[in-house]
Amino acid sequence: MLAQFKIVPIGKGESLSTYVAECVRIVQGSGLKYQLTPMATIIEGGWDEVMEVIGQCHKKVRSMSNRVATSIEVDDRGGHRDAMEQKIRSVQDRLSQG
Amino acid sequence: MLAQFKIVPIGKGESLSTYVAECVRIVQGSGLKYQLTPMATIIEGGWDEVMEVIGQCHKKVRSMSNRVATSIEVDDRGGHRDAMEQKIRSVQDRLSQG
Amino acid sequence: MLAQFKIVPIGKGESLSTYVAECVRIVQGSGLKYQLTPMATIIEGGWDEVMEVIGQCHKKVRSMSNRVATSIEVDDRGGHRDAMEQKIRSVQDRLSQG
Amino acid sequence: MLAQFKIVPIGKGESLSTYVAECVRIVQGSGLKYQLTPMATIIEGGWDEVMEVIGQCHKKVRSMSNRVATSIEVDDRGGHRDAMEQKIRSVQDRLSQG
Repeated sequence: MLAQFKIVPIGKGESLSTYVAECVRIVQGSGLKYQLTPMATIIEGGWDEVMEVIGQCHKKVRSMSNRVATSIEVDDRGGHRDAMEQKIRSVQDRLSQG
Repeated sequence: MLAQFKIVPIGKGESLSTYVAECVRIVQGSGLKYQLTPMATIIEGGWDEVMEVIGQCHKKVRSMSNRVATSIEVDDRGGHRDAMEQKIRSVQDRLSQG
Repeated sequence: MLAQFKIVPIGKGESLSTYVAECVRIVQGSGLKYQLTPMATIIEGGWDEVMEVIGQCHKKVRSMSNRVATSIEVDDRGGHRDAMEQKIRSVQDRLSQG
Repeated sequence: MLAQFKIVPIGKGESLSTYVAECVRIVQGSGLKYQLTPMATIIEGGWDEVMEVIGQCHKKVRSMSNRVATSIEVDDRGGHRDAMEQKIRSVQDRLSQG
């Protein structure tokens, strides 16, 4: 499955890149496939391993800020491997069919 | 902390109440404080117990549908108990101050 | 249709009730049916009127803060009036059927 | 500002690429800068033009399906141009600083 997540400390400074970088380091350490987008981080894996990683990220940012807003969106589809590439390719195929 | 979640099977019928009811039963079984809104279910608890319950809900709906979109939003703030009531009351106080 | 929205200033204080109250006042002024939950505000109406109101709220909070994160979730279903009550009732009916 | 959106027809088939492709065509027609990710579409522009485009996409998918769930996340920050590249670069800078 794919999960997209975003972790925002409330009441800290306007810049969030420090917190995002902390999370990316945790994601990289997990060995899960991931993609950083301008709005969130996307990771691919099973429910338990994905939620374990996002939980570590949330708790890390929470240790740096007294209030944290975290959002997670999951797309879990049976029988689909390499969903990250497949989903983009599938839309591009439609577009090229005109 | 508070977590709001919504679990939507993709490619099943237009009505979702069967799936929501399955999740509400799981939430009720957990003993966690919860509130059903027209757009989502809100539960209150620690990260691990909350995510355990949402994971059970997700897996239940996933067992009924081959593709499931789940979204979770967390508001985790230190030193705030009974956040469900407090947050509403705090806004109402502001409003009544005019 | 129903729309649930949340507007969070980034880099301001930890408490958000001032901003939520500003938005609730705008929503009340619109005359649209609404419900305040511990995680968001839900309003009911057509796409254009709903987005007009949310846009006013976003711009108001943006005038008070240099960075604002806004999230909106829409549930738009044909032939369903009074969706706010109907959706809850429909789940409760399922639950009472056991 | 940046806006990330996702439009999901409820009660249609399991594959969503047809609907995503319809939306990408509308986004391309708008001339706004955009990026397609495995979980959503990100566009860059002012509130009104961005919401106009997302509204067109929502209404298009709604014309193809009786129930549609749309989610929008906005990151609106003053004084930041080319936010799509800047946000990624800013995180990469942090990461390379070790």
